[in-house]
Amino acid sequence: MPKISVLRLSHRIPRDERTTTHVALVARAFGADEIIYTGQRDSGLEKSINELVTLWGGEFSISYEKSFRKVISEYKKKGYSIVHMTMYGVDVDSTKISEDKILVIVGSEKVPAEVFELADYNVAVKNQPHSEIAALAILLDRLDVKRTFDGKLKIIPSSRGKKILKKE
Amino acid sequence: MPKISVLRLSHRIPRDERTTTHVALVARAFGADEIIYTGQRDSGLEKSINELVTLWGGEFSISYEKSFRKVISEYKKKGYSIVHMTMYGVDVDSTKISEDKILVIVGSEKVPAEVFELADYNVAVKNQPHSEIAALAILLDRLDVKRTFDGKLKIIPSSRGKKILKKE
Repeated sequence: MPKISVLRLSHRIPRDERTTTHVALVARAFGADEIIYTGQRDSGLEKSINELVTLWGGEFSISYEKSFRKVISEYKKKGYSIVHMTMYGVDVDSTKISEDKILVIVGSEKVPAEVFELADYNVAVKNQPHSEIAALAILLDRLDVKRTFDGKLKIIPSSRGKKILKKE
Repeated sequence: MPKISVLRLSHRIPRDERTTTHVALVARAFGADEIIYTGQRDSGLEKSINELVTLWGGEFSISYEKSFRKVISEYKKKGYSIVHMTMYGVDVDSTKISEDKILVIVGSEKVPAEVFELADYNVAVKNQPHSEIAALAILLDRLDVKRTFDGKLKIIPSSRGKKILKKE
Protein backbone atom coordinates (compact mmCIF):
# COMPACT_ATOMS: atom_id res chain seq x y z
CA MET A 1 0.00 0.00 0.00
CA PRO A 2 1.55 3.35 -1.00
CA LYS A 3 2.25 5.97 1.64
CA ILE A 4 0.56 9.22 0.66
CA SER A 5 0.91 12.65 2.20
CA VAL A 6 -0.95 15.74 1.02
CA LEU A 7 0.54 19.23 1.17
CA ARG A 8 -2.02 22.03 1.04
CA LEU A 9 -0.49 25.42 0.20
CA SER A 10 -1.35 28.89 1.49
CA HIS A 11 -4.34 28.30 3.74
CA ARG A 12 -6.14 31.58 4.47
CA ILE A 13 -8.63 32.33 7.24
CA PRO A 14 -11.57 32.60 6.71
CA ARG A 15 -11.44 32.25 2.93
CA ASP A 16 -10.12 28.70 2.73
CA GLU A 17 -11.63 27.25 5.90
CA ARG A 18 -14.14 25.09 4.14
CA THR A 19 -12.12 24.20 1.04
CA THR A 20 -9.11 23.15 3.12
CA THR A 21 -11.46 21.08 5.30
CA HIS A 22 -12.74 19.39 2.12
CA VAL A 23 -9.15 18.80 0.96
CA ALA A 24 -8.30 17.20 4.31
CA LEU A 25 -11.41 15.00 4.37
CA VAL A 26 -10.88 13.85 0.79
CA ALA A 27 -7.24 13.07 1.62
CA ARG A 28 -8.36 10.88 4.53
CA ALA A 29 -11.34 9.19 2.84
CA PHE A 30 -9.34 8.37 -0.31
CA GLY A 31 -6.48 6.78 1.62
CA ALA A 32 -3.80 9.40 2.34
CA ASP A 33 -1.96 9.14 5.67
CA GLU A 34 -1.76 12.81 6.53
CA ILE A 35 -2.23 16.39 5.47
CA ILE A 36 0.32 19.13 6.03
CA TYR A 37 -0.75 22.70 5.38
CA THR A 38 1.05 26.02 5.01
CA GLY A 39 -0.27 29.59 5.09
CA GLN A 40 -2.17 30.69 8.17
CA ARG A 41 -2.21 28.34 11.11
CA ASP A 42 -5.81 27.36 11.90
CA SER A 43 -6.48 25.62 15.21
CA GLY A 44 -10.20 25.33 14.36
CA LEU A 45 -9.36 23.39 11.21
CA GLU A 46 -7.00 21.05 13.08
CA LYS A 47 -9.56 20.48 15.83
CA SER A 48 -12.37 19.64 13.42
CA ILE A 49 -10.23 17.18 11.45
CA ASN A 50 -8.93 15.52 14.63
CA GLU A 51 -12.46 15.19 16.02
CA LEU A 52 -13.67 13.66 12.79
CA VAL A 53 -10.81 11.13 12.81
CA THR A 54 -11.70 10.16 16.39
CA LEU A 55 -15.33 9.57 15.38
CA TRP A 56 -14.83 7.93 12.01
CA GLY A 57 -11.52 6.13 12.51
CA GLY A 58 -8.26 5.74 10.66
CA GLU A 59 -4.74 6.92 11.42
CA PHE A 60 -4.99 10.20 9.55
CA SER A 61 -3.20 13.26 10.95
CA ILE A 62 -3.04 17.00 10.25
CA SER A 63 -0.07 19.26 10.86
CA TYR A 64 1.09 22.77 10.09
CA GLU A 65 4.39 23.85 8.53
CA LYS A 66 5.46 27.39 7.79
CA SER A 67 7.59 26.62 4.72
CA PHE A 68 6.45 24.51 1.77
CA ARG A 69 10.08 24.37 0.62
CA LYS A 70 11.07 22.67 3.86
CA VAL A 71 8.27 20.08 3.53
CA ILE A 72 9.13 19.29 -0.09
CA SER A 73 12.84 19.01 0.63
CA GLU A 74 12.30 16.76 3.68
CA TYR A 75 9.92 14.48 1.80
CA LYS A 76 12.30 14.25 -1.16
CA LYS A 77 15.02 13.15 1.27
CA LYS A 78 12.65 10.51 2.66
CA GLY A 79 12.23 9.13 -0.88
CA TYR A 80 8.84 10.62 -1.69
CA SER A 81 7.86 11.54 -5.25
CA ILE A 82 6.37 14.98 -5.52
CA VAL A 83 3.08 15.21 -7.45
CA HIS A 84 1.73 18.71 -7.99
CA MET A 85 -1.91 18.95 -9.04
CA THR A 86 -2.35 21.79 -11.53
CA MET A 87 -4.68 22.42 -14.44
CA TYR A 88 -1.57 23.21 -16.53
CA GLY A 89 -0.09 19.74 -16.07
CA VAL A 90 -0.17 16.46 -17.97
CA ASP A 91 -3.44 14.52 -17.78
CA VAL A 92 -3.67 12.19 -14.82
CA ASP A 93 -4.62 9.28 -17.06
CA SER A 94 -1.48 9.65 -19.16
CA THR A 95 0.77 9.93 -16.09
CA LYS A 96 2.10 6.71 -14.66
CA ILE A 97 2.78 7.13 -10.95
CA SER A 98 3.97 3.84 -9.58
CA GLU A 99 6.04 5.06 -6.63
CA ASP A 100 5.15 3.80 -3.20
CA LYS A 101 5.73 7.11 -1.38
CA ILE A 102 3.97 10.16 -2.74
CA LEU A 103 3.61 13.77 -1.61
CA VAL A 104 0.65 15.36 -3.39
CA ILE A 105 0.64 19.15 -3.52
CA VAL A 106 -2.60 21.12 -3.91
CA GLY A 107 -2.61 24.90 -4.04
CA SER A 108 -5.29 27.37 -3.17
CA GLU A 109 -4.91 30.67 -5.02
CA LYS A 110 -1.75 31.40 -6.98
CA VAL A 111 0.91 28.70 -6.71
CA PRO A 112 4.57 29.87 -6.74
CA ALA A 113 6.36 28.99 -10.02
CA GLU A 114 8.95 27.19 -7.90
CA VAL A 115 6.43 24.45 -7.07
CA PHE A 116 6.16 23.49 -10.77
CA GLU A 117 9.96 23.09 -10.78
CA LEU A 118 10.26 21.18 -7.52
CA ALA A 119 7.57 18.67 -8.53
CA ASP A 120 8.48 15.36 -10.14
CA TYR A 121 5.07 15.35 -11.82
CA ASN A 122 2.76 18.23 -12.68
CA VAL A 123 -0.57 16.50 -13.09
CA ALA A 124 -3.86 17.84 -14.42
CA VAL A 125 -7.41 16.59 -14.24
CA LYS A 126 -9.20 17.84 -17.37
CA ASN A 127 -6.93 20.89 -18.13
CA GLN A 128 -9.89 23.07 -17.23
CA PRO A 129 -10.42 25.29 -14.22
CA HIS A 130 -12.43 23.51 -11.52
CA SER A 131 -11.42 22.45 -8.01
CA GLU A 132 -8.32 21.26 -6.19
CA ILE A 133 -10.69 19.12 -4.10
CA ALA A 134 -11.94 17.28 -7.18
CA ALA A 135 -8.44 17.01 -8.66
CA LEU A 136 -7.11 15.45 -5.46
CA ALA A 137 -10.04 13.01 -5.34
CA ILE A 138 -9.44 11.87 -8.92
CA LEU A 139 -5.69 11.42 -8.40
CA LEU A 140 -6.20 9.41 -5.20
CA ASP A 141 -8.95 7.42 -6.91
CA ARG A 142 -6.45 6.46 -9.62
CA LEU A 143 -3.84 5.48 -7.01
CA ASP A 144 -6.59 3.21 -5.65
CA VAL A 145 -5.56 2.87 -2.01
CA LYS A 146 -8.01 0.60 -0.22
CA ARG A 147 -8.21 1.70 3.37
CA THR A 148 -10.61 0.55 6.04
CA PHE A 149 -11.74 2.80 8.85
CA ASP A 150 -12.59 1.40 12.23
CA GLY A 151 -14.24 4.32 14.00
CA LYS A 152 -17.04 4.85 16.48
CA LEU A 153 -19.37 5.53 13.55
CA LYS A 154 -19.88 3.30 10.55
CA ILE A 155 -22.32 3.69 7.68
CA ILE A 156 -24.28 0.71 6.39
CA PRO A 157 -24.73 1.53 2.68
CA SER A 158 -28.41 1.94 1.92
CA SER A 159 -30.49 2.63 -1.15
CA ARG A 160 -32.89 4.76 0.96
CA GLY A 161 -32.32 6.82 4.09
CA LYS A 162 -29.53 6.70 6.64
CA LYS A 163 -28.23 3.62 8.41
CA ILE A 164 -25.43 4.22 10.84
CA LEU A 165 -23.79 1.96 13.43
CA LYS A 166 -22.57 3.54 16.65
CA LYS A 167 -20.00 1.71 18.73
CA GLU A 168 -20.00 2.45 22.46
CA MET B 1 -23.71 11.45 -24.91
CA PRO B 2 -25.83 11.59 -21.75
CA LYS B 3 -27.52 14.83 -20.73
CA ILE B 4 -26.51 15.71 -17.19
CA SER B 5 -27.88 18.43 -14.94
CA VAL B 6 -26.64 19.13 -11.43
CA LEU B 7 -28.92 20.38 -8.66
CA ARG B 8 -27.10 22.05 -5.77
CA LEU B 9 -29.26 22.37 -2.65
CA SER B 10 -29.44 25.17 -0.05
CA HIS B 11 -26.76 27.59 -1.16
CA ARG B 12 -25.92 30.03 1.64
CA ILE B 13 -24.11 33.36 1.39
CA PRO B 14 -21.28 33.71 2.30
CA ARG B 15 -20.76 30.23 3.72
CA ASP B 16 -21.16 28.24 0.48
CA GLU B 17 -19.83 30.77 -2.01
CA ARG B 18 -16.65 28.90 -2.74
CA THR B 19 -17.92 25.36 -2.39
CA THR B 20 -20.88 26.02 -4.71
CA THR B 21 -18.44 27.61 -7.18
CA HIS B 22 -16.35 24.42 -7.01
CA VAL B 23 -19.49 22.30 -7.52
CA ALA B 24 -20.42 24.36 -10.59
CA LEU B 25 -16.92 24.24 -12.09
CA VAL B 26 -16.63 20.49 -11.52
CA ALA B 27 -20.06 20.02 -13.12
CA ARG B 28 -18.88 21.92 -16.20
CA ALA B 29 -15.38 20.44 -16.48
CA PHE B 30 -16.64 16.86 -16.07
CA GLY B 31 -19.30 17.20 -18.74
CA ALA B 32 -22.59 18.30 -17.17
CA ASP B 33 -24.80 20.68 -19.18
CA GLU B 34 -25.98 22.93 -16.40
CA ILE B 35 -26.22 23.61 -12.70
CA ILE B 36 -29.40 24.65 -10.94
CA TYR B 37 -29.13 25.83 -7.34
CA THR B 38 -31.60 26.47 -4.54
CA GLY B 39 -31.19 28.34 -1.24
CA GLN B 40 -30.07 31.96 -1.42
CA ARG B 41 -29.90 33.56 -4.83
CA ASP B 42 -26.32 34.69 -5.52
CA SER B 43 -25.75 37.01 -8.46
CA GLY B 44 -21.97 37.04 -7.78
CA LEU B 45 -21.87 33.26 -8.16
CA GLU B 46 -23.86 33.37 -11.41
CA LYS B 47 -21.66 36.13 -12.81
CA SER B 48 -18.40 34.34 -12.02
CA ILE B 49 -19.59 31.08 -13.58
CA ASN B 50 -20.92 32.85 -16.69
CA GLU B 51 -17.66 34.77 -17.11
CA LEU B 52 -15.66 31.58 -16.79
CA VAL B 53 -17.82 29.87 -19.43
CA THR B 54 -17.24 32.81 -21.80
CA LEU B 55 -13.47 32.54 -21.31
CA TRP B 56 -13.07 28.77 -21.29
CA GLY B 57 -15.89 27.67 -23.57
CA GLY B 58 -18.67 25.12 -23.54
CA GLU B 59 -22.44 25.44 -23.36
CA PHE B 60 -22.70 25.26 -19.59
CA SER B 61 -25.35 27.32 -17.81
CA ILE B 62 -26.28 28.24 -14.25
CA SER B 63 -29.76 29.01 -12.99
CA TYR B 64 -31.60 29.54 -9.72
CA GLU B 65 -34.79 27.86 -8.54
CA LYS B 66 -36.56 28.43 -5.26
CA SER B 67 -37.96 24.92 -4.83
CA PHE B 68 -35.93 21.73 -5.17
CA ARG B 69 -39.23 19.80 -5.29
CA LYS B 70 -40.25 21.68 -8.41
CA VAL B 71 -36.90 20.99 -10.13
CA ILE B 72 -37.01 17.28 -9.28
CA SER B 73 -40.61 16.92 -10.40
CA GLU B 74 -40.01 18.77 -13.69
CA TYR B 75 -36.91 16.73 -14.48
CA LYS B 76 -38.71 13.48 -13.67
CA LYS B 77 -41.42 14.50 -16.15
CA LYS B 78 -38.73 15.16 -18.75
CA GLY B 79 -37.48 11.60 -18.27
CA TYR B 80 -34.46 12.31 -16.11
CA SER B 81 -33.21 9.80 -13.54
CA ILE B 82 -32.55 11.37 -10.16
CA VAL B 83 -29.16 10.52 -8.60
CA HIS B 84 -28.62 11.85 -5.09
CA MET B 85 -25.02 11.88 -3.85
CA THR B 86 -24.92 11.00 -0.15
CA MET B 87 -22.40 9.26 2.07
CA TYR B 88 -25.27 7.03 3.28
CA GLY B 89 -25.93 5.63 -0.19
CA VAL B 90 -24.81 2.60 -2.18
CA ASP B 91 -21.24 2.74 -3.48
CA VAL B 92 -20.88 4.41 -6.87
CA ASP B 93 -18.95 1.45 -8.24
CA SER B 94 -21.76 -0.98 -7.42
CA THR B 95 -24.43 1.29 -8.90
CA LYS B 96 -25.19 0.87 -12.57
CA ILE B 97 -26.47 4.13 -14.01
CA SER B 98 -27.05 3.68 -17.71
CA GLU B 99 -29.74 6.29 -18.30
CA ASP B 100 -29.08 9.00 -20.85
CA LYS B 101 -30.69 11.83 -18.86
CA ILE B 102 -29.52 12.35 -15.31
CA LEU B 103 -30.19 14.92 -12.62
CA VAL B 104 -27.45 14.72 -9.98
CA ILE B 105 -28.33 16.21 -6.57
CA VAL B 106 -25.63 17.46 -4.20
CA GLY B 107 -26.50 18.91 -0.81
CA SER B 108 -24.64 21.39 1.32
CA GLU B 109 -25.50 21.05 5.01
CA LYS B 110 -28.43 18.88 6.10
CA VAL B 111 -30.37 17.35 3.22
CA PRO B 112 -34.16 16.95 3.72
CA ALA B 113 -35.20 13.29 4.19
CA GLU B 114 -37.57 13.79 1.26
CA VAL B 115 -34.62 13.95 -1.16
CA PHE B 116 -33.60 10.38 -0.27
CA GLU B 117 -37.16 9.30 -1.17
CA LEU B 118 -37.46 11.28 -4.39
CA ALA B 119 -34.13 9.98 -5.73
CA ASP B 120 -34.00 6.96 -8.02
CA TYR B 121 -30.46 6.29 -6.76
CA ASN B 122 -28.81 7.31 -3.50
CA VAL B 123 -25.13 7.00 -4.33
CA ALA B 124 -22.09 7.16 -2.08
CA VAL B 125 -18.40 7.64 -2.73
CA LYS B 126 -16.51 5.85 0.08
CA ASN B 127 -19.32 5.93 2.74
CA GLN B 128 -17.12 8.32 4.70
CA PRO B 129 -17.58 12.04 5.34
CA HIS B 130 -15.64 14.12 2.81
CA SER B 131 -16.86 16.51 0.14
CA GLU B 132 -19.82 16.87 -2.19
CA ILE B 133 -17.35 18.37 -4.69
CA ALA B 134 -15.26 15.19 -4.70
CA ALA B 135 -18.35 12.96 -4.76
CA LEU B 136 -19.71 14.80 -7.80
CA ALA B 137 -16.34 14.56 -9.58
CA ILE B 138 -16.12 10.81 -9.02
CA LEU B 139 -19.70 10.19 -10.19
CA LEU B 140 -19.20 12.28 -13.35
CA ASP B 141 -15.83 10.58 -13.92
CA ARG B 142 -17.61 7.21 -13.88
CA LEU B 143 -20.27 8.46 -16.31
CA ASP B 144 -17.29 9.36 -18.54
CA VAL B 145 -18.74 12.16 -20.65
CA LYS B 146 -16.13 13.37 -23.12
CA ARG B 147 -16.72 17.01 -23.76
CA THR B 148 -14.53 19.46 -25.63
CA PHE B 149 -14.38 23.13 -24.78
CA ASP B 150 -13.73 25.71 -27.44
CA GLY B 151 -13.08 28.87 -25.44
CA LYS B 152 -10.87 31.93 -25.71
CA LEU B 153 -8.37 30.20 -23.43
CA LYS B 154 -6.94 26.75 -23.93
CA ILE B 155 -4.24 24.98 -21.92
CA ILE B 156 -1.47 23.06 -23.65
CA PRO B 157 -0.69 20.27 -21.17
CA SER B 158 2.86 20.63 -19.92
CA SER B 159 5.13 18.72 -17.59
CA ARG B 160 6.61 22.04 -16.34
CA GLY B 161 5.13 25.51 -16.06
CA LYS B 162 2.11 27.03 -17.73
CA LYS B 163 1.32 26.98 -21.44
CA ILE B 164 -1.85 28.70 -22.44
CA LEU B 165 -3.27 29.63 -25.86
CA LYS B 166 -5.28 32.83 -26.13
CA LYS B 167 -7.62 33.29 -29.07
CA GLU B 168 -8.35 36.85 -30.10
